[in-house]
Amino acid sequence: MDLENSQKAVNELVPRVHELLTHQRTREARALLVQLMEPEVADILGDLEPAEKAVAFRLLPRDEAARVFAYLAPDEQERLLHGMHSEQVGPLLDAMSPDDRAEFFEELPGQVVAKLLLLLRPEERKQTQAILAYPEQSVGRLMTPDYLTVRPDWTVQQALDYLRQHGRDAETLHTIYVTDEPGKLLDDIRLRQLVLASPHQTVESLMDRTIVPLYASSDREEAVRVMERYDRPVLPVVDRDGVLVGIVTFDDVADVAAAEATEDIQKMGGVEALEVPYSKITLTRLIRKRGTWLLILFMGEILTASAMGYFQDELSRAVVLALFIPLIISSGGNSGSQASTLIIRALAIREISVKDWRRVLGRELVCGVALGLLLAAIGLVRVLLWQWLGWQNYTNHYALVAFTVAAAVAGVVLWGTIVGSMLPFILILARLDPAAISAPLVATLVDVTGLVIYFSVAFLILRGSLLG
Amino acid sequence: MDLENSQKAVNELVPRVHELLTHQRTREARALLVQLMEPEVADILGDLEPAEKAVAFRLLPRDEAARVFAYLAPDEQERLLHGMHSEQVGPLLDAMSPDDRAEFFEELPGQVVAKLLLLLRPEERKQTQAILAYPEQSVGRLMTPDYLTVRPDWTVQQALDYLRQHGRDAETLHTIYVTDEPGKLLDDIRLRQLVLASPHQTVESLMDRTIVPLYASSDREEAVRVMERYDRPVLPVVDRDGVLVGIVTFDDVADVAAAEATEDIQKMGGVEALEVPYSKITLTRLIRKRGTWLLILFMGEILTASAMGYFQDELSRAVVLALFIPLIISSGGNSGSQASTLIIRALAIREISVKDWRRVLGRELVCGVALGLLLAAIGLVRVLLWQWLGWQNYTNHYALVAFTVAAAVAGVVLWGTIVGSMLPFILILARLDPAAISAPLVATLVDVTGLVIYFSVAFLILRGSLLG
Repeated sequence: MDLENSQKAVNELVPRVHELLTHQRTREARALLVQLMEPEVADILGDLEPAEKAVAFRLLPRDEAARVFAYLAPDEQERLLHGMHSEQVGPLLDAMSPDDRAEFFEELPGQVVAKLLLLLRPEERKQTQAILAYPEQSVGRLMTPDYLTVRPDWTVQQALDYLRQHGRDAETLHTIYVTDEPGKLLDDIRLRQLVLASPHQTVESLMDRTIVPLYASSDREEAVRVMERYDRPVLPVVDRDGVLVGIVTFDDVADVAAAEATEDIQKMGGVEALEVPYSKITLTRLIRKRGTWLLILFMGEILTASAMGYFQDELSRAVVLALFIPLIISSGGNSGSQASTLIIRALAIREISVKDWRRVLGRELVCGVALGLLLAAIGLVRVLLWQWLGWQNYTNHYALVAFTVAAAVAGVVLWGTIVGSMLPFILILARLDPAAISAPLVATLVDVTGLVIYFSVAFLILRGSLLG
Repeated sequence: MDLENSQKAVNELVPRVHELLTHQRTREARALLVQLMEPEVADILGDLEPAEKAVAFRLLPRDEAARVFAYLAPDEQERLLHGMHSEQVGPLLDAMSPDDRAEFFEELPGQVVAKLLLLLRPEERKQTQAILAYPEQSVGRLMTPDYLTVRPDWTVQQALDYLRQHGRDAETLHTIYVTDEPGKLLDDIRLRQLVLASPHQTVESLMDRTIVPLYASSDREEAVRVMERYDRPVLPVVDRDGVLVGIVTFDDVADVAAAEATEDIQKMGGVEALEVPYSKITLTRLIRKRGTWLLILFMGEILTASAMGYFQDELSRAVVLALFIPLIISSGGNSGSQASTLIIRALAIREISVKDWRRVLGRELVCGVALGLLLAAIGLVRVLLWQWLGWQNYTNHYALVAFTVAAAVAGVVLWGTIVGSMLPFILILARLDPAAISAPLVATLVDVTGLVIYFSVAFLILRGSLLG
């Protein structure tokens, strides 16, 4: 069954669950839900009426309920909790894994979090508070304290016995951590190593002392990069003293990677990062997120009206020049947004770094000249052809007009390419996020300068004739 | 040690390795390299001179050499192989994991692959050929056949003994697969379940029969989506008959996810997907990838020159109208690229689907009106203010000019928002990839229609006065 079919199956189950619930056949509904996997149950709940949702959710065994809860959208989580008694809320939250619980709390207002924290068992409360104390977007917020540690002087048999006794709760047993008495991380070993080793070996004999720890205070993007580089499904998290304080698993890191890609894409499209799914964000917030950038870009673009004010004289003497304004400035914007997109992405995935700027400039100059000449040739032919075919009359000086358009296109494309490719480096040097550069921003910057280039070229070429 | 420090440490080790090699202190160089992790060794090799690179590589134990080889860039892999005898090449390729080996072969020309395949041991050759027979970009190309299967009627003890005997080579022992005699996949169980269970239980008693298999022939993006949805580090791959043929691990899926994000971002920036890293692509290929789209956009933008040809009369009577052309058309392009970026990303991560188009249209209409009115107000104030301050002279009819600009901005922003948000849906209905829509493409589409809106509005408002 592939994903499409699974989604279809889920859609078909919704009316079935609805029917069972309206006929109070709760036992059958429960049997049906329990055999599904958590993301699927979450999808079905999402499609039920609010009252039914609450009933169906309460049918689930507590541990499964906690896992399903983690897959629900934040607003559905809140609505479900609202309909529950606090005796039910505590155990549900207790049964969630600490990182899922912290993620849920992050979405709630501060007072609600404080109230809910009181419902937790003391040890769960401590874990959640510890995670919440780390700054937002930090590795600390991603980690879970559900891991197991062994000591280097234990035998493999001792370690396996210890895991058998304490392993039920650990989020992952893929990797076991070796620590010394004060809790300092010495090494990580995989469960497979323990299983494959002879029972009488010591844990120390399995150690290779190559660990890739994360700092709890690092930015969460660090987790994405380290996991990508070292291909490990679990990474240990340490504090400043090297003491193990948690682990980060591949699934949470994959979520971060996807969220960061979404943010980058939105910024490149000229929108502030929404931070909430498009379908969930309120209209006022959506308008504000887009309005901010749209306003900045509009203010920038107002400069084009001022710039053209300077050339009003030339324009009234040669209205024909106005016809090519959109063509010329858009060529600069397009080539600029191509260049900036390529460079920003290459910087984001660390494929190039700031020190490569000279090499990038060299390549981009070649690209800019080649692409500029290509478009210039087409522009030249377009003007001449329309004139010869009698489709347009570009005055007696049409050949000079054609030449002006071609030269301006070449210049603007080269300029757009240079601006688009160097702007990301400039932002990094100014300690700003290069991902804040969007295609529309580059286009706006190039529009204003593009007009100046166009009219300067026109002045040079046409001053003896049309602009006489 | 975080990633930054690790990178710094690697940079500092390069001269040290270089020094050891020039003084023929190979034993020390080997000791130094062996204690590092594979991605770090690959980085160091990348920074050495070609001759040294080959020497350093040969110092590595064979299994480590194979793993390091998988982390090298394709062109470095090729260069290393060129310098080796075929007696050395065979064992090196044999020691690579089958999916890494297939990935390496994918980058090579067909004849080279055929030659190299002959150097492999028969069973390795069979595995690689099997993977290479699946279409490019398919799940089959990602999978590795290094997994272990057990039977449902075995006891836990039998299963663990079996793993101990056969587990050395398996790429991951995180998940063990239960199959019947003809190889059909029945269930997956985790190693931790085996370790935590009592040795006398049967494997069947651990089974819950919830599996999420992938088809070998599915698109590789399916692996990304399934792994994201079900949070599993390993997924089984089956053929049409449900027979287990391989597994796909989280690290390969993370690479696919990153590559797909890069492609989407490049397409959104108006470039064909490069498919090769920016810093590795040849200049001619880079120019071709950008030139194609730049040309298409230029052709589209040429229509603006034709559209304006129709309004040449109006323009010569009211040159003042030309001043606001860049401002007005760019507003449409910017709002359009915002809308298309948000919708394309939401569709890509399956946060909305085609059937949501009505709801999206409703929201976007509200956004378009709100944002259009906001910018229109600013445009109105801008024209009036400059006139009153005496910075510009927009003729005696300046109030009507201001009103024309404002009305055109509002109309163009609304139009851009509608086009940008609906275009992705139209492409999906036409069975095309919505990610092919770029900010520049939306801008170009909106530029032409934006000019028509502007001059129509101008004609309506100014025909009694300026356009007499």
